[in-house]
Amino acid sequence: MDAIRWDGNTLHLLDQRALPTQKAWIRCDDWTQVVQAIEHMVVRGAPAIAITAAYGMALAIQQNADRQVVERSLLASRPTAVNLRWSLERLATIPNEQVEDEAIRIHNEDRAICKAIGDHGAQFLDGGVITICNTGALATGGQGTALGMVRTAITKGQSLHLYVLETRPYLQGARLTATECIEDGIPFTLVADSMAGTLMAKGDINAVVVGCDRVARNGDTANKIGTYSLAVLAHHHAIPFYVAMPLSTLDTTTLTGRDIPIEERSAEELCRVGATTIAPETTPVWNPAFDITPAHLITAWVTEKGLWVPPNHAPLDVIHRNR
Amino acid sequence: MDAIRWDGNTLHLLDQRALPTQKAWIRCDDWTQVVQAIEHMVVRGAPAIAITAAYGMALAIQQNADRQVVERSLLASRPTAVNLRWSLERLATIPNEQVEDEAIRIHNEDRAICKAIGDHGAQFLDGGVITICNTGALATGGQGTALGMVRTAITKGQSLHLYVLETRPYLQGARLTATECIEDGIPFTLVADSMAGTLMAKGDINAVVVGCDRVARNGDTANKIGTYSLAVLAHHHAIPFYVAMPLSTLDTTTLTGRDIPIEERSAEELCRVGATTIAPETTPVWNPAFDITPAHLITAWVTEKGLWVPPNHAPLDVIHRNR
Repeated sequence: MDAIRWDGNTLHLLDQRALPTQKAWIRCDDWTQVVQAIEHMVVRGAPAIAITAAYGMALAIQQNADRQVVERSLLASRPTAVNLRWSLERLATIPNEQVEDEAIRIHNEDRAICKAIGDHGAQFLDGGVITICNTGALATGGQGTALGMVRTAITKGQSLHLYVLETRPYLQGARLTATECIEDGIPFTLVADSMAGTLMAKGDINAVVVGCDRVARNGDTANKIGTYSLAVLAHHHAIPFYVAMPLSTLDTTTLTGRDIPIEERSAEELCRVGATTIAPETTPVWNPAFDITPAHLITAWVTEKGLWVPPNHAPLDVIHRNR
Repeated sequence: MDAIRWDGNTLHLLDQRALPTQKAWIRCDDWTQVVQAIEHMVVRGAPAIAITAAYGMALAIQQNADRQVVERSLLASRPTAVNLRWSLERLATIPNEQVEDEAIRIHNEDRAICKAIGDHGAQFLDGGVITICNTGALATGGQGTALGMVRTAITKGQSLHLYVLETRPYLQGARLTATECIEDGIPFTLVADSMAGTLMAKGDINAVVVGCDRVARNGDTANKIGTYSLAVLAHHHAIPFYVAMPLSTLDTTTLTGRDIPIEERSAEELCRVGATTIAPETTPVWNPAFDITPAHLITAWVTEKGLWVPPNHAPLDVIHRNR
């Protein structure tokens, strides 16, 4: 399952808004369509956004667009995930005629990064594992970050059952992660976000694994809304909490979680599902797309180069105690 | 706003499944329709179920049905809420010709119980208050239990803002509580269940207040799925956690939460919202309707006779510390 295809002139994106019921592809022949595809969440997931933005720049150069204008538009399309900025900064010093090659390189490298995160992190996953959002093939250029760790663990023969939080309001767990699990035969159970604590209290969860959209220098981690609650629940039940983190998601220029901008999305996402109205028209809503999990609630960050530990973080004996 | 009307021959129930978009009433001329209305959640909320069941028995007597058969069917319609059993036990010793009057009495008493819970509990609510599910007029015969406390606090002029958890999968918060808040001018914000922890970390929440479906003798409390997570989060943030509890919800024959049966509902509720499919067809699902919050995570139970404290519960100084 892949979600991003480049044919040299056109970027083809699997429209993730139409899953799980339809596999529809959207063509981007123009860089402004790429900006809109990111904004409207045709594609989502920090690594996938970074790859998509790189191809957007490649398209822009084919169109002779002003690179600075394109960069600003792409940067503004989603504010929280830092990989988008990382990707554009990497392209900034590349001459026009090499940008397409560099975009393809970013895409290919992401596949290897996912594989390496899986290799380093699979050892921590056994028994019941819970995750939020989608961090799989649909969110990356490869097998995924957190879901990549799950895939590698299963490939290695570890006995693992994945609990997938549906992830309101955008339902990335129900719509996307469940789809990937079914396609790849990953044993799983879908639950509502509110059921995580009850599963932990029952003793069904041995580890939490999540992705991330931006990690501050001190380890505070921005990820899908609900991650913070999940981390507090894991802490209360003494369950280890792992973050799968491509190094491009570590933002050393951001000192703490307080400095990470949190995108707020429309009330519509909470008041309507498909054509069904689920809250009265005039309902006031708060709809942040992400939250910040403080570093002290996180057991370890798994990167493509092994475990990362922020300065002043407690030693990782929790990992060993819990295995 | 009321949801249960008895005209002497027919029970009229507001179809809560159609809210917030339609106010449709369902007629029950036959006691078996009452059983189905409870089973299919036309009516829900522990006190409202108790009232509805009492009218169901009144209808059954008009139809010359076998009272024991009716009682067994009603009892089996929802397994977790104990008020249903309480209501039927109260009717069990009443002669046929007085059952209708007793049902009307149960209905009227519930209005007074809600009022008294509000009077005893309003003092604990100020500033940001978060709640789950629907515990208002739609769940009771009066102004509600937890939502009744909120209503009384507002009537008394206390400055309060209610955060309403949407309450997946059945969305009682978004569909029902938001509707009541708008009709009554209660200042509120709707959020996804996964946002509770983030609101608490921001310092926006001063108290949690919830209803209950059954409280065991030791204080362990069954309530809407998600209540346990909310209690752990409140504990982590040192926020007081109140349960609004009509004394009919206290089940002294159940010793601890482990002995409370938890209803599991269909996968459909998680995989579809209205006509929209939100998870692949073959998705395995776990869908408990309730969870158990252990007594030690609860600050106080507010009943129509004042605060209740289970045996061996920590003293209530948390209440005072947090006010």
